[in-house]
Amino acid sequence: MGDITIIGTGNMARTIGTLAVAGGNTVEVLGRDQSKADDLAKALGSGTTAGEWGAVPSGDIVITALLYDGVVPVVVEYGDALSGKVIVDISNPFNATFDGLTHSEETSIAQEVAKVAPAGASVVKAFNTIFRDVLEKGRPHVFIAGDSAEAKASVKAFVESLGLRALDVGGLQMAPWLEGMGLVTVGLAGNGVGHGDFALGVNEFNG
Amino acid sequence: MGDITIIGTGNMARTIGTLAVAGGNTVEVLGRDQSKADDLAKALGSGTTAGEWGAVPSGDIVITALLYDGVVPVVVEYGDALSGKVIVDISNPFNATFDGLTHSEETSIAQEVAKVAPAGASVVKAFNTIFRDVLEKGRPHVFIAGDSAEAKASVKAFVESLGLRALDVGGLQMAPWLEGMGLVTVGLAGNGVGHGDFALGVNEFNG
Repeated sequence: MGDITIIGTGNMARTIGTLAVAGGNTVEVLGRDQSKADDLAKALGSGTTAGEWGAVPSGDIVITALLYDGVVPVVVEYGDALSGKVIVDISNPFNATFDGLTHSEETSIAQEVAKVAPAGASVVKAFNTIFRDVLEKGRPHVFIAGDSAEAKASVKAFVESLGLRALDVGGLQMAPWLEGMGLVTVGLAGNGVGHGDFALGVNEFNG
Repeated sequence: MGDITIIGTGNMARTIGTLAVAGGNTVEVLGRDQSKADDLAKALGSGTTAGEWGAVPSGDIVITALLYDGVVPVVVEYGDALSGKVIVDISNPFNATFDGLTHSEETSIAQEVAKVAPAGASVVKAFNTIFRDVLEKGRPHVFIAGDSAEAKASVKAFVESLGLRALDVGGLQMAPWLEGMGLVTVGLAGNGVGHGDFALGVNEFNG
């Protein structure tokens, strides 16, 4: 159990917040619209607070629960307030037809975030391969990628506090492939897999 | 059960050939080194034949069980002999350090094969996310991508003849992401997941 800040007040912020509270974490919610942040904090309960937009987040882990095109601007806006934090990017930069990514496949939102993050901050890609409703009702595997072993250990502990398994795929240079796996998940759902109630994960076969 | 041709005489050719024979398929093996093809055909048994290098393959499905950099050249060499065939590319274009792909992420070996394949041939990406030893002893999910629904149905039937589940992720433009998932599989293994005895797949959560 740790201190988590969620930047964002939308559906994914609510879902992750709900799981985080249930997992015994101390949660802070930040929203540009303070009333929405206040409402979400109240809805999450269990001591969840709504911080002040732009101030230093209280959580050691800061989850940017934003649409993909909002992540880099918000990290830039927060600037040094994120120094020393573990920034968790959960976004999926899907194109308008959900069959490709918006950016060149040579990069990822997570890597772009790392470029603008302040000194001492670490970036971890996580959660993006999971549909929100599956996160609410299932026990999906959570793929994580990042360059800092310490930051990944911190995110892994958080994931496990939610009752979920974290799967470390490697450094942040793997983030493009996790973003591609978000696309693969959409593709599989479009072909009727599990009536949409599924997530990519690992299946083990050892003895 | 169908007619399958495997181009290649290495370990992956042997593994897929073994499963294909067990699944009741009629198998042909093709190798540039005819004696190796003859040996593999004999080892696979059950009527497996070794065809003549360069001649029209007997199988409707032609699996190129080759190293990634051999696939496009062989498809070019075969040329019109592959007309009307379903070409299954199973390759992983890993770089020397196994933490990136050799080609730009804007393409994939499968898409490069499609560019040089003769008229009437269809290309399907499949099997590349599965370690060979897992394919031998487990029941891994087989992700497939391709632009022809008919070709994918044919590959799906073949996969099912092996007792495996085929998961259609969409068109051939998804092949880069399947190649990335090959890389993610290596990354997970490097982090100790399942002692290497695992494969990416889907986990379902519906009621």
